[in-house]
Amino acid sequence: MHQLIAELYPICRSITGDGFRQTMEILRRHIPLKIHEVPSGTRVFDWTVPKEWNIRDAYVKNAKGEKIVDFQKSNLHVLNYSIPIKMQVDLGNLKKHLFTLPDHPEWIPYRTSYYKEDWGFCLSHRQFLTLEEGKYEVIIDSTLENGFLTYGELFLGGEKEEEILISAHACHPSLANDNLSGISLATMLAKHLETVTRRFSYRFLFIPGTIGAIIWLCLNEASLSRIKNGLVITGVGDSGDITYKKSRRGDAEIDRAACHVLIQSARPGRILEFSPYGYDERQFCSPGFNLPIGRFSRTPYGEYPEYHTSADNLEFVYPEYLTDSYLKVRSIIDVLENNRVYLNQNQKCEPQLGKRGLYSSIGTNEIALLWVLNLSDGSHSLLDIAERSGFQFKAIKEAADMLLKACLLVEQ
Amino acid sequence: MHQLIAELYPICRSITGDGFRQTMEILRRHIPLKIHEVPSGTRVFDWTVPKEWNIRDAYVKNAKGEKIVDFQKSNLHVLNYSIPIKMQVDLGNLKKHLFTLPDHPEWIPYRTSYYKEDWGFCLSHRQFLTLEEGKYEVIIDSTLENGFLTYGELFLGGEKEEEILISAHACHPSLANDNLSGISLATMLAKHLETVTRRFSYRFLFIPGTIGAIIWLCLNEASLSRIKNGLVITGVGDSGDITYKKSRRGDAEIDRAACHVLIQSARPGRILEFSPYGYDERQFCSPGFNLPIGRFSRTPYGEYPEYHTSADNLEFVYPEYLTDSYLKVRSIIDVLENNRVYLNQNQKCEPQLGKRGLYSSIGTNEIALLWVLNLSDGSHSLLDIAERSGFQFKAIKEAADMLLKACLLVEQ
Amino acid sequence: MHQLIAELYPICRSITGDGFRQTMEILRRHIPLKIHEVPSGTRVFDWTVPKEWNIRDAYVKNAKGEKIVDFQKSNLHVLNYSIPIKMQVDLGNLKKHLFTLPDHPEWIPYRTSYYKEDWGFCLSHRQFLTLEEGKYEVIIDSTLENGFLTYGELFLGGEKEEEILISAHACHPSLANDNLSGISLATMLAKHLETVTRRFSYRFLFIPGTIGAIIWLCLNEASLSRIKNGLVITGVGDSGDITYKKSRRGDAEIDRAACHVLIQSARPGRILEFSPYGYDERQFCSPGFNLPIGRFSRTPYGEYPEYHTSADNLEFVYPEYLTDSYLKVRSIIDVLENNRVYLNQNQKCEPQLGKRGLYSSIGTNEIALLWVLNLSDGSHSLLDIAERSGFQFKAIKEAADMLLKACLLVEQ
Repeated sequence: MHQLIAELYPICRSITGDGFRQTMEILRRHIPLKIHEVPSGTRVFDWTVPKEWNIRDAYVKNAKGEKIVDFQKSNLHVLNYSIPIKMQVDLGNLKKHLFTLPDHPEWIPYRTSYYKEDWGFCLSHRQFLTLEEGKYEVIIDSTLENGFLTYGELFLGGEKEEEILISAHACHPSLANDNLSGISLATMLAKHLETVTRRFSYRFLFIPGTIGAIIWLCLNEASLSRIKNGLVITGVGDSGDITYKKSRRGDAEIDRAACHVLIQSARPGRILEFSPYGYDERQFCSPGFNLPIGRFSRTPYGEYPEYHTSADNLEFVYPEYLTDSYLKVRSIIDVLENNRVYLNQNQKCEPQLGKRGLYSSIGTNEIALLWVLNLSDGSHSLLDIAERSGFQFKAIKEAADMLLKACLLVEQ
Repeated sequence: MHQLIAELYPICRSITGDGFRQTMEILRRHIPLKIHEVPSGTRVFDWTVPKEWNIRDAYVKNAKGEKIVDFQKSNLHVLNYSIPIKMQVDLGNLKKHLFTLPDHPEWIPYRTSYYKEDWGFCLSHRQFLTLEEGKYEVIIDSTLENGFLTYGELFLGGEKEEEILISAHACHPSLANDNLSGISLATMLAKHLETVTRRFSYRFLFIPGTIGAIIWLCLNEASLSRIKNGLVITGVGDSGDITYKKSRRGDAEIDRAACHVLIQSARPGRILEFSPYGYDERQFCSPGFNLPIGRFSRTPYGEYPEYHTSADNLEFVYPEYLTDSYLKVRSIIDVLENNRVYLNQNQKCEPQLGKRGLYSSIGTNEIALLWVLNLSDGSHSLLDIAERSGFQFKAIKEAADMLLKACLLVEQ
Repeated sequence: MHQLIAELYPICRSITGDGFRQTMEILRRHIPLKIHEVPSGTRVFDWTVPKEWNIRDAYVKNAKGEKIVDFQKSNLHVLNYSIPIKMQVDLGNLKKHLFTLPDHPEWIPYRTSYYKEDWGFCLSHRQFLTLEEGKYEVIIDSTLENGFLTYGELFLGGEKEEEILISAHACHPSLANDNLSGISLATMLAKHLETVTRRFSYRFLFIPGTIGAIIWLCLNEASLSRIKNGLVITGVGDSGDITYKKSRRGDAEIDRAACHVLIQSARPGRILEFSPYGYDERQFCSPGFNLPIGRFSRTPYGEYPEYHTSADNLEFVYPEYLTDSYLKVRSIIDVLENNRVYLNQNQKCEPQLGKRGLYSSIGTNEIALLWVLNLSDGSHSLLDIAERSGFQFKAIKEAADMLLKACLLVEQ
């Protein structure tokens, strides 16, 4: 996963344009993404698809002709969605278009202006302080024209029509954790799920933040009832605790599955109640849809200073934390895939486990067997049983499998 | 408010009589109270309106002819509702009618005997200990005769017929916190509400404790369904924490509004579950009525030693705490007046706040806007939204007002 | 109770056989138990009644002819349900049939093999270590033949057909706490209940563990709906905290009554959620029955090392803890017997307690009166009122009795 992040890192992405397309092409080497192109000006609910933005180069030259700020060195140097500009300005006017982080003087901030036409440059505060009076040449060789907004989608059919939606925003330029980590995890997850038997269908979205989710919801409104569970995946490579933010419903199956996995982990992780600010769960969980979709991340965006700066780089994401995040998402999906309701076929008193070879000496497994038998009355799923018993879902699932083999359970 | 308390303080009030009437007349200088007179002997549910009690003078003279206990110095000296008496007694017999507080030897206790004919004097334990053997002359120049029980009522109509009831007991003589503070707060609140637009109607009661509430409930039984919320106000001038006692329902709107205001305060205050002992909430929350009425006070009656003694005097109530109590009650009423259910007009995805000028940079206000939009689905009131979001009701209300102006909300 | 335990202690009981019958005969000196005999081979749900086991003698002799392990000294020395055996074995083969407790080298373990034919001896690990190479003579003079399984049952009719079930397992040999203490407590409780007026009917079961409960449930399936509440009683003589394990329902009246009694105790005790492992609550609370039956014990079986060893002897159970357990069970039954729903006859405002002599000075009792009046609206039982008010059930019951006498309440 870290390798894929590294490959995607240099590309200048935005909510539209060739950087986004190039990103999708790289993902298509791993998974058969379908690419959608939505024309500028398309109305989607209360929003309008913006013009397409592309950029080739941008810099600021000082009076000596030295490029002191250079898009080629870091695409964060340009205010994302800057209109084309070519002018001479004095320092005073230039400063109105410069963005820095005084609290982190070595870092370049990441700034955007999608819906208000503007231009600007981002640079380290240390460098900003060295700028001398004088004339500066400013070049932004960009275009902002009618075109298309691009997004990628992958559908993997399963035994059931019901879908699990996995969504990652893919509109940020050279930012490794937010959200190349999420893109990479979702890609590897899709690659894995392609190869296995799936009870549910899966749909993966690689979309520009906000507008991408709004477009997708608008275009797919008629079939949203198929979405049974889902995750917005973002910021999964840093060293912080895993953090799950509940869906607006608060008690959806995805919420319970994610909480179970986090609580049962060696390093338990944090669980946040729903709030209407954040990533694309804002749209998925808007009241008109109220989809059962939560957010899976490590440290939440507001809580690490590297967020939306040049310090969210390849050193900020760690292979071991990417792997840990990936395995936790797999565990959550395992819960969803295996969460069934069984019926104990001997509900009056315990069945005699001994004569079926299921009762050696009383250890953990036997007690899991008893829990599954006792609660498999038609109103408890395996996740219900895991929650009530305190056992891991895995142990309850294994107990259910043994009882199924012994014909003591049938699926409801 | 402290000034009104000081004016009312010297009057010898009881559950009936001229002291109560005089008190109502003073309040009528501020608010247009309607005075009710209920004849002695009237049956009200399980109770009977008692005879009217009036007192002109009372004292105990020692053998030297010195007035050692004198009603003119403090009306607490006489057992409230003492029958007329004029007799010589020796010290032994006198002592059977004397009440003191050995634990607080400087204080005079406040005692009553409304429903059992008796007489007595209250004095400091310090003085009690100095009483010498000998004859004492005892005079209580009171009357206990058929007459009337008096109470005051003020109705302020609003846009809705639904009423908010504010009740204060007004039967205690020279006790400043219990309950001249409550009378004074309720008077000033009524004066304020008279001058403003009211969504709800308001009804203020200044009544003798217990019997007054029973009378009012009995006489107004047919229209009690109009009472949507209410507060019993008492003991609001001491320096203790504000204490809200929930209605018997426990989750009435008044309970939630008061809890919200207290929890969000800089000095949060205490919340008590309902119990069937206390002030007139006992009657309002009797099971046959179960009205949504809580109790608003500062230190509860059982928890300060000055309660029902001469130490509950003008020094015990502070202008700043009276003001704080008044403002908290106003805040609670603001919640009730403004707690509406709105419908987000763009429930599918977020509306684009930027194009409406509602989205500057993400600060507190914008997140309040998002909470109001996300939860205004027809099943959440603004108080629900404040509770779930953790924002103050005021901030949620302001956010709703901005969204209303932008036509993004309509009232349900 | 300790005396009865001492009398029963030497008998070699098992899930069938004369030891069990002899035990029932001793109990019949105290209470008129009805004895049931169920033939071997009877099918009961998923189980079959096993052959009857009886034993007269058993020993291991060393080469010198010394009885080194002797059933006559402790019936725990024989693996319970050992088949008859008479053979010479060398030490190596003997050891395959010996059971010890290395962690407690002085104690003899208690082991059984009901459903797999086997033989063996249990001895102290200290002795085990002294065994020398050589020939050993092994004698188990037992029989395992078609016969009967025995259990005792006592029914005490009450005003209502609804039953409270008290069950104790009686299949363990010389183990004092598990479960002679439970047998003894249940016997004394039955003896007491015989002599008093009973609102409910009571049914006492003295049964072999697991198979006994399964048999009884199978034979009485048609009338199980009469069981309104019940307790499995076991391990009630040790010095640990009282521990109540909730029924599968979790909020049955027995659960609430037991929790109330434990929480209100001077030494509060522990409350465990239901789990499907344990004693006969496993069968009573199997999903097909889901009876409102909890488990009453002191230290739970898994938590004291003496459990199922020779150290669970007459010194391990204390008269004072037996008495404490007995009184707590009595208190729980008192709650059940007296938990009624009353209707306040003056629901509109408080009734005037003073004129009925119920209102002296405000103390604990008066507040209990007010709680009963306030909540006796037809939807709260006395236990509901005790729980909400924080008063002991006893105080609430006494308050209700006073109000009944004053005609202020009637039973619903």
